[in-house]
Amino acid sequence: MKLKIIKIGGNVINNKEALSSFLSDFSKIKGHKILVHGGGKRASEMIRDLGMKPKMINGRRVTDEATLEIVTMVYAGLLNKNITAELQKNNCNAIGLSGADANTILAHKRIVKDIDYGFAGDVDQVNPEAIKILIENGITPVFCAITHDKKGQLLNTNADTIAAELAKGMSADFDVEMIYCFEKPGVLADVDDDATLIENIDFVMLSFLKKENIISEGMLPKIDNCFNALQHGVKKVIIGKPELISDKNIKYTTLIL
Amino acid sequence: MKLKIIKIGGNVINNKEALSSFLSDFSKIKGHKILVHGGGKRASEMIRDLGMKPKMINGRRVTDEATLEIVTMVYAGLLNKNITAELQKNNCNAIGLSGADANTILAHKRIVKDIDYGFAGDVDQVNPEAIKILIENGITPVFCAITHDKKGQLLNTNADTIAAELAKGMSADFDVEMIYCFEKPGVLADVDDDATLIENIDFVMLSFLKKENIISEGMLPKIDNCFNALQHGVKKVIIGKPELISDKNIKYTTLIL
Repeated sequence: MKLKIIKIGGNVINNKEALSSFLSDFSKIKGHKILVHGGGKRASEMIRDLGMKPKMINGRRVTDEATLEIVTMVYAGLLNKNITAELQKNNCNAIGLSGADANTILAHKRIVKDIDYGFAGDVDQVNPEAIKILIENGITPVFCAITHDKKGQLLNTNADTIAAELAKGMSADFDVEMIYCFEKPGVLADVDDDATLIENIDFVMLSFLKKENIISEGMLPKIDNCFNALQHGVKKVIIGKPELISDKNIKYTTLIL
Repeated sequence: MKLKIIKIGGNVINNKEALSSFLSDFSKIKGHKILVHGGGKRASEMIRDLGMKPKMINGRRVTDEATLEIVTMVYAGLLNKNITAELQKNNCNAIGLSGADANTILAHKRIVKDIDYGFAGDVDQVNPEAIKILIENGITPVFCAITHDKKGQLLNTNADTIAAELAKGMSADFDVEMIYCFEKPGVLADVDDDATLIENIDFVMLSFLKKENIISEGMLPKIDNCFNALQHGVKKVIIGKPELISDKNIKYTTLIL
């Protein structure tokens, strides 16, 4: 059985019309599917509205206790439930989940080395049983980027990682295709020129691109994540703009082993 | 098959130790169960922290758009996910839900008569299918007091009502017992004297208590709600302190038809 796992990030979340249009397209996808959403800028806005300052190191959020409360509210509450309600409007029987729900995603608080990221969670394990039950009953899981440690602690987890771990975790039972949506049409040779899209990347191509320093620094961990997923049973990974899920003419990058 | 639906309110939610102790007791209940939780004072605190003023009329919250965002964050995010994570710690396989999730609870925006309560939701229908699937697979639903209208709109709904509607909705498939936990040991003849607990109330007793104005004004709608549930297939309703779920020696009020 096929399963599509689609990840959307800040660029879609931050734009009400883009999100609405994406969710309408997502609803029309036939077959089993899972949506994973990032947080967008609402969490940082809420942190500022409450008189605090968002703290980021190397592009990752430092999650102290107050920040964890806010991201839990914004990701698992505000965004997750509004996305779920909008999918329901589109007749997609969505269920909004965090990793704590039905113990679907277990993580541990990131070990402090040079930097203390606070309540950041690194994923240990995806438990596919409950997810499988939902999917097989026509219910579409919608994951926010919150996990737990099964000791009562919620943890803030990178949404890209959640998508990749879910893809790996579900690949024993399904033929998983993972689709990463972001603001670019895919992996670009020149990050400022959409015309330089690299449509297919295999392992040989990846080595070449790395050796020649062609892939941008921000893209490298994403791609490594994707190849890791492919090496752990995921059948196919696609990277591109959100429109690719409905528009057959749009180009994107396909990663293959 | 038996199903216990337990509702906790502000007095438990507001006290971290009381909540923790309750969730430990709840985890130990054998058989099928559902938890419904109210909001406590965190939503009002958050409204104030964001520079707004909580608005209440006749003890019910007036939910404008900004307030809806906040209650969605606090109820469906902060409270619901922390309760779920704590239940998971206690080896209860909880799943946190709003009425939008798997379209479990459909509501409509309250019709404006004298008072405009804004995005307050009155329940139209509980859809038991998804809830049944979860329960029968050993997963324990934990409902917050947020519903939706299937047109993309989330709605703020009274938690007592959600518990009663769930109880009615599940009673076609289960022998439902509904347990309302609050700060008093049950229905009291004198609201200031716990010794005046009325242990059993049937329809005849209810008429008498109403005629003699013995039941307090705040309690009356709760009891009417409960009898309505009993008349719609719910087997038993219990009202009392949260400790009643574990302590066999504690007294409470039982409502029977």
